[in-house]
Amino acid sequence: MLDALKAILGDPERVIGQIEDKYLTDTLGRLKGEADALVFALSTEEVSRVMKFAYENSIPVTARGAGTNLVGSTVPQKRGIILDLSRMNRILEVDEETFTAVIEPGVVLQDFQAYVESMGLFYPPDPGEKTATIGGNIATNAGGMRAVKYGVTRDYVRGLEVVLADGTVITSGSKNVKDASGLQLRQLFIGSEGTLGVITKCILRLVPKPEASLSVLVPYADLDSGIKSVHAIIAANASPTAIEFIERSVVELGERYTGVTFPCPEAKAYILLTFDGVREQVLQNAQRVRAVTEKTGALDYIALTDPRQAADIWKVRGCFVKAVEAVSEQEPVDLVVPINQTAAYIHYVHQVEAETGMQMIAFGHAGDGNVHLCIIRGDRDQETWDRELSAVMHMLYKKAHELGGLTSGEHGVGIAKQPYFFRNADPALLETMRAVKNALDPKRLLNDHISYLK
Amino acid sequence: MLDALKAILGDPERVIGQIEDKYLTDTLGRLKGEADALVFALSTEEVSRVMKFAYENSIPVTARGAGTNLVGSTVPQKRGIILDLSRMNRILEVDEETFTAVIEPGVVLQDFQAYVESMGLFYPPDPGEKTATIGGNIATNAGGMRAVKYGVTRDYVRGLEVVLADGTVITSGSKNVKDASGLQLRQLFIGSEGTLGVITKCILRLVPKPEASLSVLVPYADLDSGIKSVHAIIAANASPTAIEFIERSVVELGERYTGVTFPCPEAKAYILLTFDGVREQVLQNAQRVRAVTEKTGALDYIALTDPRQAADIWKVRGCFVKAVEAVSEQEPVDLVVPINQTAAYIHYVHQVEAETGMQMIAFGHAGDGNVHLCIIRGDRDQETWDRELSAVMHMLYKKAHELGGLTSGEHGVGIAKQPYFFRNADPALLETMRAVKNALDPKRLLNDHISYLK
Repeated sequence: MLDALKAILGDPERVIGQIEDKYLTDTLGRLKGEADALVFALSTEEVSRVMKFAYENSIPVTARGAGTNLVGSTVPQKRGIILDLSRMNRILEVDEETFTAVIEPGVVLQDFQAYVESMGLFYPPDPGEKTATIGGNIATNAGGMRAVKYGVTRDYVRGLEVVLADGTVITSGSKNVKDASGLQLRQLFIGSEGTLGVITKCILRLVPKPEASLSVLVPYADLDSGIKSVHAIIAANASPTAIEFIERSVVELGERYTGVTFPCPEAKAYILLTFDGVREQVLQNAQRVRAVTEKTGALDYIALTDPRQAADIWKVRGCFVKAVEAVSEQEPVDLVVPINQTAAYIHYVHQVEAETGMQMIAFGHAGDGNVHLCIIRGDRDQETWDRELSAVMHMLYKKAHELGGLTSGEHGVGIAKQPYFFRNADPALLETMRAVKNALDPKRLLNDHISYLK
Repeated sequence: MLDALKAILGDPERVIGQIEDKYLTDTLGRLKGEADALVFALSTEEVSRVMKFAYENSIPVTARGAGTNLVGSTVPQKRGIILDLSRMNRILEVDEETFTAVIEPGVVLQDFQAYVESMGLFYPPDPGEKTATIGGNIATNAGGMRAVKYGVTRDYVRGLEVVLADGTVITSGSKNVKDASGLQLRQLFIGSEGTLGVITKCILRLVPKPEASLSVLVPYADLDSGIKSVHAIIAANASPTAIEFIERSVVELGERYTGVTFPCPEAKAYILLTFDGVREQVLQNAQRVRAVTEKTGALDYIALTDPRQAADIWKVRGCFVKAVEAVSEQEPVDLVVPINQTAAYIHYVHQVEAETGMQMIAFGHAGDGNVHLCIIRGDRDQETWDRELSAVMHMLYKKAHELGGLTSGEHGVGIAKQPYFFRNADPALLETMRAVKNALDPKRLLNDHISYLK
């Protein structure tokens, strides 16, 4: 297989047989696969030729970008070829006249954001992991904090070039804003976790860069009041960009890790908001929220106009996962519940903590019900951890599903979340997903370890 | 067949054998089909039972709501069953806590808009035809004027219940804001023109109702300056809800039809904007645009603060199709071009008019390159009209495609636009669409007259 791939690429150095561990796993490294070849593609044509070869020889293919995924999506459980797209990282065009960009899938999110911002433009999707590739963002329909105002990655994908399982290249979509011209297949590839095709080009929508932004921290005496204020904030037409919630106990973890002191230590929960846009309107919108928070019993309203203070607060907000990982392995959860169930859900998390002794930290995107949990291993041995984690995860997902929630808001199902996804999935819906998978990848070569499509 | 359907529904009055003409066509009536039975469904279960029967007996089914489509999507060219969903028109739930609504597909757009607005909420998609059903809006991914700020129907569909060709009922999506839990099949049904399943329930996203709105009319000495200003307006971060363009000649048609006089008759083109949101910000945004229009050579800037004047201007903007149809049959076109090609495209339209003698009026959504044309039949006999219309349509679509545009921005392909859609469609992409159609509707029963999926 290696020789055939070397001949296909005409560049033996981009076909690897001795594969480094990092290519056999995801960013957490707790799952590991095996593969026969690692291929670095440089063009759509190369991807197409590799897929044709794989198709003719029925070889599984696992596509990957930066490998920052958290649920094992890039873990090659069926051996075969790892198709690395991280070197297809050119920004091919930024079209200021149509507010679009055409890029390769391996472009790194933070690089792309910086590039378009230097041109006075803005790419709003902002998932936490800035070193992810845009191709990976599209494959998981990545969300992030700014979703409250701007939506998620899907909302910024105008078109995709995709290489199908048999090597066929299709383009669905264009620079046009509206499209009612045939089935919108690109919508199917967005969020499909690499199971239907390999994304090789992305036509993205941009917006004008906001003039200004402002963060505001609002402490509450308890979580319920904080979460309740979120509905009032949204209803107030104040266009917040992000609405995050953090419990005091989690803040304290961040304080210890960063050395930063959060204001209002008597609070039990904080709502952290951002606003962006035209300068005067950013201030007006923040003032609107101030009025709402006064009515909903906030302990204070702290506009983070001092850049140093703002940086400190965001340093804490950004450090939780690292603070946990500094002392223990953790299992990340990104479930989502309807926005009016967030507080009820967090209370349940605390109940599970008390009942099981499994420590967790919870924070997340209150504006869209997207709850992030880090379940902390501590000093459990492997067998104990596996058993207790599984029990806790089942409890957590069961409750989320009972409240009308979903298994994943932004990380995807991958391998790690399959048992919980399955338990909540309607068999008829799964069957329909499988019919689509069969139609596009009849030999089941593409990321077939994501077995809800089996 | 009629007796079987009557038994299935248990209500003979909702199964019709002698079918009125209006159920055999679309709103234009220029295409007409034939069918064996017209069935009025009242529930998902009934739709499922009808589909099971159709599937077992390989009977084609054409779903319809209000029948306001313009491209023959509801014309039953394969006979079989017409499945009318217009009586499934209940608003099942408006959930203020999660800013969502659950409705049946036969709910009429204007009724739904009015209902949620009475509760302080807002359903932004606003296609021109307010008597369409929401199910039909979803089936064509209907756009409309407000798309510049708010996006199109797709952006407000959180979930769909769909009856598949064999009667299976699936639900894809939920009230949750974010969703990375498996293939997002609802995205495939949106805009699929009834070819993949019958929509029986819609979970829709709502937003808080804007406090205020304002329209502004900006006359220009020529179309190019007007269209050029659109880019500057978008770049100015002024959040316009709608950006329409109208040529003076078209305004004059509207003036004659309505008796209203437009300001600034020396203009050759007008840009008509709306703003909505928080009152003070509506005014700020309009002022921002004023500054832009001054720089881009506008002849005037007319804020339509007088409600009577605003109503008059919108009366003219709203009357074009009716004004044409009062004197002649017309063929509607809703093509789309990248926003920087709108002016070039309209110049081409005038060139075609001059070359062929075929009169057309052009207007549309300048903010998203969505050009509406009415091609006017005049006193041509049928044979001449068919021949000359076909020639002109081919020229018009050829140019749109050359400029990077698409066949349809919001009406869909249906029957009427198939030849033009085909000419621009990549065969590999069509083949992939057909694979998906085959997977979900292997007997090709659902709206199979939309033959790009054949």
